[in-house]
Amino acid sequence: MTSFAIIGHSARTDGGFSLNDLPGSGGRMDVLCRCVNASLFLSHDLRRDVCCYLVLCGEPAGPKTVQFSGDVLRSLSPDERSAGALIKKALDTVCGNEFREAAAGVFVRKGGLDRLMTEHTFALLDEKGQDIRAAGSLPDSFLLSDHQNFSEQEESQLAACPRYSVGPRCLHADHTITVVHNELDRRICGWK
Amino acid sequence: MTSFAIIGHSARTDGGFSLNDLPGSGGRMDVLCRCVNASLFLSHDLRRDVCCYLVLCGEPAGPKTVQFSGDVLRSLSPDERSAGALIKKALDTVCGNEFREAAAGVFVRKGGLDRLMTEHTFALLDEKGQDIRAAGSLPDSFLLSDHQNFSEQEESQLAACPRYSVGPRCLHADHTITVVHNELDRRICGWK
Repeated sequence: MTSFAIIGHSARTDGGFSLNDLPGSGGRMDVLCRCVNASLFLSHDLRRDVCCYLVLCGEPAGPKTVQFSGDVLRSLSPDERSAGALIKKALDTVCGNEFREAAAGVFVRKGGLDRLMTEHTFALLDEKGQDIRAAGSLPDSFLLSDHQNFSEQEESQLAACPRYSVGPRCLHADHTITVVHNELDRRICGWK
Repeated sequence: MTSFAIIGHSARTDGGFSLNDLPGSGGRMDVLCRCVNASLFLSHDLRRDVCCYLVLCGEPAGPKTVQFSGDVLRSLSPDERSAGALIKKALDTVCGNEFREAAAGVFVRKGGLDRLMTEHTFALLDEKGQDIRAAGSLPDSFLLSDHQNFSEQEESQLAACPRYSVGPRCLHADHTITVVHNELDRRICGWK
């Protein structure tokens, strides 16, 4: 199982955003929708061995985590609105500290990065990291930031995590996930 | 200058589609919007040395080609609706057989693949092609299909084109573009 977790620093933590304005009303929820797509889609198929975690840190509630589980996910289409509608449904679901299913394969709970870090050993995707192609073996859990840098507090929390870079240019989070998948696919299938 | 051209087999050729339903009303215009994003975006920047051509082949008009030119493009945001709005504006612009500017850096003309093939020497991005990492040198113009395969007629038109594959799994068109960019970035910057 490969996991990607993305921190949405300003992403809204209730369903009070419009699918017609994911960037503005959702606190750049569009960034997270594209990360869901990049994590989970193959052509005409889903990556059933992938989990995508969205760590939402914006207004108005405390942080929440939304999980998309490829193994049981249904009703996700590749367009941004489709992921946005499922996130909205999850955020409209009353939840506590444990994951609760809001739609098939989509779960939500209160809490953010602190809890997730007790459950996964993350490597960071970061332009200052080691070239992913040169790495001897790769981890199975990757953490990355949205359009903003990791905050100072996050940087200190994450100081001990290994860091990998996907290439010489600074990319959007979803593009970074796509390149990581390509590297993992190649290794699994014996392509160099 | 790197060019990507994407054939939208069912993509609408007038502006009569809704930004609230790009997949349904636009003939899978969402696929093309994501290809525009993958072709042109870096983190907090645009790839100024890239052109993206959308070859629209759906109802109701004959084929049209919409060009996004990174060197002069403005007003493009990463979300699908933003690219969709610019495509819609281009398709609402009266045009002839030569490119006409519909918005800064966005051009439209009548005609499709036949004309574009007289202007560019395309390589195809196709899962049956040579591994892009193993290729000695890479071309600067890439053609790929949307969510459908190339048609029989297109296949015969394109029979002489070299074909490259980005990896062992069959990917969405926009993910394929992202991986090609990563390979080109690495070569340009001297990363292996």
